Amino acid sequence: MTANMTGDCLGQGCQFGWNFTECIVSQSCHDGLANTQECLCRDNIYPYIGVFGKGYGKNDEPLRAYLLSFIIAVAFTLIGDLNIIAMLNSSLFMAVYTIINFSCFHASFTNSPGWRPQFIYYDKWVSLFGAVVSFVLMFIFSWWAGLVTLIIFILLWLYIYYKKPNLNWGTSIQAGSYNIALSASVALACVEDHVKNFRPQCLVLTGPPTQRPALVDFVNSFTKHASLMICGDIIMDKKTRPQEATDQLVKWMNKRKVHSFYSPFTANSLRSGAQNLLQASGLGKLKPNTLVLGFKSNWEESAPESIEDYVNTINDTFDSNNCLCILRMMDGLDVSDQFDFKVNQGFEPDESVEKRDQPSSEGEPSDDGTDKGDGDETVFQDDQGKKTIDIYWIADDGGLTLLVPYLISRRKRWSRCRVRVFIVGEQLNKEESRKEMLALLKRFRLDFKDVRVLTDCERRPQAKNLERFFDSVAPFRLYDEPQEGVSISQNVPWKISDREFGGLQT
Amino acid sequence: MTANMTGDCLGQGCQFGWNFTECIVSQSCHDGLANTQECLCRDNIYPYIGVFGKGYGKNDEPLRAYLLSFIIAVAFTLIGDLNIIAMLNSSLFMAVYTIINFSCFHASFTNSPGWRPQFIYYDKWVSLFGAVVSFVLMFIFSWWAGLVTLIIFILLWLYIYYKKPNLNWGTSIQAGSYNIALSASVALACVEDHVKNFRPQCLVLTGPPTQRPALVDFVNSFTKHASLMICGDIIMDKKTRPQEATDQLVKWMNKRKVHSFYSPFTANSLRSGAQNLLQASGLGKLKPNTLVLGFKSNWEESAPESIEDYVNTINDTFDSNNCLCILRMMDGLDVSDQFDFKVNQGFEPDESVEKRDQPSSEGEPSDDGTDKGDGDETVFQDDQGKKTIDIYWIADDGGLTLLVPYLISRRKRWSRCRVRVFIVGEQLNKEESRKEMLALLKRFRLDFKDVRVLTDCERRPQAKNLERFFDSVAPFRLYDEPQEGVSISQNVPWKISDREFGGLQT
Repeated sequence: MTANMTGDCLGQGCQFGWNFTECIVSQSCHDGLANTQECLCRDNIYPYIGVFGKGYGKNDEPLRAYLLSFIIAVAFTLIGDLNIIAMLNSSLFMAVYTIINFSCFHASFTNSPGWRPQFIYYDKWVSLFGAVVSFVLMFIFSWWAGLVTLIIFILLWLYIYYKKPNLNWGTSIQAGSYNIALSASVALACVEDHVKNFRPQCLVLTGPPTQRPALVDFVNSFTKHASLMICGDIIMDKKTRPQEATDQLVKWMNKRKVHSFYSPFTANSLRSGAQNLLQASGLGKLKPNTLVLGFKSNWEESAPESIEDYVNTINDTFDSNNCLCILRMMDGLDVSDQFDFKVNQGFEPDESVEKRDQPSSEGEPSDDGTDKGDGDETVFQDDQGKKTIDIYWIADDGGLTLLVPYLISRRKRWSRCRVRVFIVGEQLNKEESRKEMLALLKRFRLDFKDVRVLTDCERRPQAKNLERFFDSVAPFRLYDEPQEGVSISQNVPWKISDREFGGLQT
Repeated sequence: MTANMTGDCLGQGCQFGWNFTECIVSQSCHDGLANTQECLCRDNIYPYIGVFGKGYGKNDEPLRAYLLSFIIAVAFTLIGDLNIIAMLNSSLFMAVYTIINFSCFHASFTNSPGWRPQFIYYDKWVSLFGAVVSFVLMFIFSWWAGLVTLIIFILLWLYIYYKKPNLNWGTSIQAGSYNIALSASVALACVEDHVKNFRPQCLVLTGPPTQRPALVDFVNSFTKHASLMICGDIIMDKKTRPQEATDQLVKWMNKRKVHSFYSPFTANSLRSGAQNLLQASGLGKLKPNTLVLGFKSNWEESAPESIEDYVNTINDTFDSNNCLCILRMMDGLDVSDQFDFKVNQGFEPDESVEKRDQPSSEGEPSDDGTDKGDGDETVFQDDQGKKTIDIYWIADDGGLTLLVPYLISRRKRWSRCRVRVFIVGEQLNKEESRKEMLALLKRFRLDFKDVRVLTDCERRPQAKNLERFFDSVAPFRLYDEPQEGVSISQNVPWKISDREFGGLQT
């Protein structure tokens, strides 16, 4: 606001409340055709014209732009027929009037508060009328000159459209996108929820998205063009991200064609941050209903408080009636940090090998892509070939376990993947369980045919594995022998007593 | 999801993954034309057909619907010319095929995860092709029958469109609104900010919006169709609002034509709630940058902790680079609570008379509307007539003080209001200050001509007023005489010492 409001505004555009070039805004140019040309050249919208943008002397005299004007004037004079010159001239004038009138109308139409025309008889409908009249007149004067002008203007526009010069004019098109997004979101607020239109709207705790590209790519592979995705970045060190870092992260996501929003959020703990983001982020119906986490692979080494924080985040998510997804990658989620942000204690790289709800690496090795240049390529960016997607349907959990693989399998990259559904059953009525599951899948209208019944769960686990399990949970158990008095369970609330542990085993 | 997934799905629609009526979803109907008719009648979309929806016996036999089918069949047979009947018949069939094909296409097109057709040769483009072919065939068979059918269908549709029956089918149009809102918001995320397109995007701490309708209406009067407005409701009693209450509040806002979102948020204090909402709410560029508060009119009576909370909320807002607006109404903001929600301690009704940045009641009495029926009419809903909007421009605060009145004065209701700008100056260079301010307004391209210079501030305040001021702030002062030891300033951090107080006075 300040730059536009407090600066001395020069040039015709100001009367209409608009500064058309960057360098008029920055007060370096003055009136006149040659000056406008100088500005245009300085903005460097078209190639090879930058050289004409140089000014000389105290008044920044546009000597080179004078030369350019002279050359153009001579070139047109060389046509030699005043009738033709007049036609071209009128036609170009009409085209300019059309564009100025229309841009005035469009700026008014988008309701941008920054558009405050001073001309007292200004009216947006008069502008629109002027634009239409100028456009029609352009062709009435001479249809061929009008056509030539139109083609020239379209070519110039196409060039800008595809080259996308790195200039931010604050155009009325930008103001228009704001209006469209706002009114569409407001209109959505009036739409009632219905189970048929349920979509998993994901809040993904990625930290800075560049940090865990696999998590971003995986969630994007089932939300893109279909559902909301917000990358939540919980900042626990009391400092807010500088605006440039945020912009850089958003640019990274746009470049990667990830359709996601980025929400940095300062909080004391993962738990409160996740809860607050789930509550507050989004607009109306565009609101997260699913929390996506990376697997805390360093749980054996990390501080008990951070584990408690992580587990409580999961519990809170269920308590507040939200869905939960956890992604575990073979090589961990984190990549080396390009932006030098602090990594949340929760998610350090891991070397674990277990994978669940993930494509197992049958067809191709699943670690292709990890040895490429930038370090942020992930397995989810490539075509998945004929891998398999394994679903473990242990209990009826509402259907998200089936919905997410279904959404993934619709993508082109995953379309050749086979989906297998594993259920737990007994050896005796194995075939029966299989048929039940197939019937359920049919009712869900999911085209998964490959149902396998796991009967192993009847057997006792092998002594070796049981021992490994007891070893890994040993630090978190509260043995019945009181080691330092009775109050120990208050000091270490994350430890579980023998009785609770026994309850879990059965 | 559950209702649609786990129920036994009957009827032709199921093969295409769609249940067309509420009562098929609720498993009360069976196949057949008469049953479909029964369902249609039960949904009560069209008037006087509810009577045909009654079923008889154990199988819910649609006897009345059989009768209706019979009557319709006889009525058409009475035309007596088989050619005409065949024409009408084909035409109606084609129209139905068009609609079914097109709705399949549209459901696929909106990417709703709930749309999972089982027909293995299904393809959305085939559906679209089928729809177009059926539509064209309808007119090729017989143009007059096609036209009659089209008119009948349009009339039926118009009836539903305007009557808006209270049924939620989870249509693909609803899925479509979601997609439009999502893609528009995602597209906006790529747009860079520019000062020209600055808009005051307001987070309004209304509590339940029904509680402070004046605050809602006032902010809506400058954000409607132009900018984002979120009604933040900070819930401090650890309980979340039930979903029905939230829906009711959203409906109240829609009915009032307030274009705003409603964000309930559980927090420990006003301060943390406001900060978290400012940080987390919104999507991408649709994010609040302005906090709007009601004036804490009961500050003299309320607990010091709540005052500190309120003041710190204001300080935090400035610290986090956001704008701030405070609305003070003559009769306070709160209305009697219809929903029996707990009122935040911060904003009790007040009887104060001061008003700032508000229309003073010169033309008409400003309390019209407060004695009407529902109790939630506010002065901002009526035409404002020829009142005046007073702006007190004490210091250059960035321009929001001028921008908000400008945005208000653009509204039709406020268009006849006069805007006066008051500035502080000295008697000597009064005219000079006035001209400076007029020049500033011209640079801002604001059409405010009436600038008045207040020179009173040179004079000492009257002894009576000074005494009143000292009396009112007395409870918050920390007198130099140590009353209960040195540590008092730690216990009561909201009190200010004599030295700080002296600093404020100069």
